Amino acid sequence: MGAPDPFESSPDETRGEMMRATYEALRKHGYSDLTIQRIGDEFPKSKSLIYQHYDGKDDLLVAFLEFLLERFKADVPSDDDFEDARDHLLTLVERPLADPDDEHVAFLGAMAALRGQAPFDEAYREQFADTDAFFREHVADIVRDGIEQGVFREVDPERTAAFISATIDGAQSQYVTTGNEAAVDDVRRELTEYVRRRLVVDGEDGS
Amino acid sequence: MGAPDPFESSPDETRGEMMRATYEALRKHGYSDLTIQRIGDEFPKSKSLIYQHYDGKDDLLVAFLEFLLERFKADVPSDDDFEDARDHLLTLVERPLADPDDEHVAFLGAMAALRGQAPFDEAYREQFADTDAFFREHVADIVRDGIEQGVFREVDPERTAAFISATIDGAQSQYVTTGNEAAVDDVRRELTEYVRRRLVVDGEDGS
Repeated sequence: MGAPDPFESSPDETRGEMMRATYEALRKHGYSDLTIQRIGDEFPKSKSLIYQHYDGKDDLLVAFLEFLLERFKADVPSDDDFEDARDHLLTLVERPLADPDDEHVAFLGAMAALRGQAPFDEAYREQFADTDAFFREHVADIVRDGIEQGVFREVDPERTAAFISATIDGAQSQYVTTGNEAAVDDVRRELTEYVRRRLVVDGEDGS
Repeated sequence: MGAPDPFESSPDETRGEMMRATYEALRKHGYSDLTIQRIGDEFPKSKSLIYQHYDGKDDLLVAFLEFLLERFKADVPSDDDFEDARDHLLTLVERPLADPDDEHVAFLGAMAALRGQAPFDEAYREQFADTDAFFREHVADIVRDGIEQGVFREVDPERTAAFISATIDGAQSQYVTTGNEAAVDDVRRELTEYVRRRLVVDGEDGS
């Protein structure tokens, strides 16, 4: 899946270091055993800087989710990197479910831990709502492009995007909470097949 | 979705009451703020009974997941309740994503909270691995039945089941961690469409 490293080359060095420290502490300890003290242990500068910026663990973690979404938005590949919308969408559905390396598993574990807080905390819920909406819109844009290019059938872009996003999220969450690699591989194959059959014009021949 | 009440008519009354107390405390407080004390507050008998049976919060919560899986297995509807495998599978994919009532949302929130612990705790991981495997096998059995009955195409039952299971899980998790009802409704419609087009023989006519 390619290890994400959203902490590099942050325009604000201290903020980037604080976010990296949050991530390192979160992936080690999970949400429940996470403390500002433990985040401070991963931070190369004075711990007091963290207290100056954030009101506590949840405030810092919500800022961390916001930071990830910003970087995620900045890192979205351009259409120019792909032959057409078909190539773009197939890459997008294959990549997050293929060859999970340790770094990416740790990242997904950290996300699962924070999602687990969302049902009980409005600020987390808003942040995940923004993140999910951004990913869905991104997928819907690719679907719309494909319809315009004549490579996709006239499907409902929002509905298709919601479906793809839920499937990827579910497969990643199941993988990181069970360790079952065969299942995530099955989902990846079937999701690719879904794109080929349901979206791609004359898809049966392409598969 | 129909409120699950796996705590009723437990063959062991005290165990059922302990599991219900765990659930009530979990849905109120989430994982992180959950304590044996708070579980005890929901338990009609002496708190000391809880300490006698369980080594601590995680031991009790893993037992709680085990209990849910047992009840889930016992409550799986029989083939006789459905016209054929097509009817069975369409009901199975529609029900968990339709009309979420408060009770079911609370239940899914509790599950998301416990999934969030799994990347950091082997005992939780094993429990979710069992639960996910059971649901996948259940779906695969229905798919196999449908192929035998001639109502489904010759798809790969395991791969299809992994895909359906990931999609339902992802949609539920996204819903309960964002509150976005429109998205879960989109997923439900598209998943139904997937079953009709990909599995059902002559499915295009049936939709």
